[in-house]
Amino acid sequence: MPDHFADRLLAAIDQKGSPVCVGLDPAIDRIPPEVAESVRDLLGEAWEEMDDVVRAANLIYCFCLDVIGAVADLVPAVKPQIAYFERYGAAGVAMYEAVVSAAREAGLIVIGDVKRGDIGSTAAQYAAGHLAIDDGPDAITVNGYFGADGLMPFVEAARDNGKGLFVLVRTSNPSARQIQDFADAAGKTVFQHAAECVAELGAAEGLIGESGYSCVGAVVGATYPDEARLLRKLMPRQIFLVPGYGAQGATAADCAASFDEAGRGAIVNASRSVIYAHQLPEYAGMEWPAAVRAAAESFAADIAKAVKP
Amino acid sequence: MPDHFADRLLAAIDQKGSPVCVGLDPAIDRIPPEVAESVRDLLGEAWEEMDDVVRAANLIYCFCLDVIGAVADLVPAVKPQIAYFERYGAAGVAMYEAVVSAAREAGLIVIGDVKRGDIGSTAAQYAAGHLAIDDGPDAITVNGYFGADGLMPFVEAARDNGKGLFVLVRTSNPSARQIQDFADAAGKTVFQHAAECVAELGAAEGLIGESGYSCVGAVVGATYPDEARLLRKLMPRQIFLVPGYGAQGATAADCAASFDEAGRGAIVNASRSVIYAHQLPEYAGMEWPAAVRAAAESFAADIAKAVKP
Repeated sequence: MPDHFADRLLAAIDQKGSPVCVGLDPAIDRIPPEVAESVRDLLGEAWEEMDDVVRAANLIYCFCLDVIGAVADLVPAVKPQIAYFERYGAAGVAMYEAVVSAAREAGLIVIGDVKRGDIGSTAAQYAAGHLAIDDGPDAITVNGYFGADGLMPFVEAARDNGKGLFVLVRTSNPSARQIQDFADAAGKTVFQHAAECVAELGAAEGLIGESGYSCVGAVVGATYPDEARLLRKLMPRQIFLVPGYGAQGATAADCAASFDEAGRGAIVNASRSVIYAHQLPEYAGMEWPAAVRAAAESFAADIAKAVKP
Repeated sequence: MPDHFADRLLAAIDQKGSPVCVGLDPAIDRIPPEVAESVRDLLGEAWEEMDDVVRAANLIYCFCLDVIGAVADLVPAVKPQIAYFERYGAAGVAMYEAVVSAAREAGLIVIGDVKRGDIGSTAAQYAAGHLAIDDGPDAITVNGYFGADGLMPFVEAARDNGKGLFVLVRTSNPSARQIQDFADAAGKTVFQHAAECVAELGAAEGLIGESGYSCVGAVVGATYPDEARLLRKLMPRQIFLVPGYGAQGATAADCAASFDEAGRGAIVNASRSVIYAHQLPEYAGMEWPAAVRAAAESFAADIAKAVKP
């Protein structure tokens, strides 16, 4: 696989035939009871001796492993959301690391959804812990509220380690407009201004791959397709990580706005609508991993069809 | 101590006589060699069997414990910066948890500097992991780029658990202006707009303590004192967490701009200028914990003098 993150991600998308990513958001109350049963059986006495937090951490780990197994040959990437692991403290973070490692071993591109951000000296610590380690994720999400000096340690770590980052530009949630749509006298918004900063930052020497895309990408919510079309123009060299499809309400047509004219340059994420497919009426009666697989196939086909150039 | 975070923090400030916080940013390459020697002696064979990451996590933990011991009777609060722990993955996060716990046992208010932020469903997971747990920090820092629905899970967890949060409004770093000074036609900036949002969010029913301050505070960098004066007016019920003193260059007079007319309503943080005091010329020749203690005393006296009403 190519050494440059953007090239590697785009090659993986080509190989799997669809620009999609399955989000791993393992909420304990939505995990199928079969997972708990098999973990209890597998761990035996060790399970009995575990406290609730360690049990929960083991459950979400095993659930993610099964999801990875169900989708690894269908999709190019997974996106573990660290909040669902961090909820269980250090025990959960250990499982986040194990999930990242297992997904990489399964041949998947791994985007660690950590949304870290701080002043430069602190960002350097986050960059060291998330991007400059062996066996870590291929890319992470970061928050750009601190401006360029808070982002530079992440950019440098990505450049030096063949990794990538996705800077939050337009988030997918309902109140995204509250801060991000604040506008200047000419009508330019905060998210447009952020996009220009990211485009400039990501165009520096050594950051653009052979694909023409930068290792510095952007998060652009599918729930705001008009904004995505505008952002595609403002950030021609950024791969967009596109959340919002499925449980958050965006359609494949909404997602298509984030792609370039050749149908490249973006990857769409779905989390809950895929990994909890066994709870949806259309997959009733299926074994839960088969439901997850069917939902991933349907998701991948839906996006591939919508973005064909 | 009072059940409401703002009341508890202000009571602790009154008790210790100075509104200051020592930041725990344990960088492995700045830890005194004596700490490494004593940890090696203490752990003996166990040390020999540890890998480098676990050794580093143990070192930063022991360093923080010694710093806590040196300052616990002088200052009301400490602020562990999780990035310095997270750098070492799950092993580091376990030590972050242990440091939070040790600081609480030492009678200190603990502000977990985690700067988390995400869409509502994900923020709820972070809130559960950082605010809704026994033995966790008294408050955390959060990033508000997602707007109100991303903040609400943190606000609710703070309200329901007697905890607090500090929302990033004006950060202390040089490029803070890049996004935060973006202004509308009337000259209102993003950070002012963010301040108005935080003031509104923090004024909701059940959030204001007997002190008149809310459990929803704000991060306001001391490195921008003119902005701090303006923000003090915009957020009359927010306690300000004020970084930037010391290593980042702000003076006590700069910090004073964040306090109300009665000399209350803010807490100033210093990290590197206190915990690495043994490397400063003015403390040359002192044992390192004595240097840290002397620097904390000097910091507390400097701030107390500047903010006297």
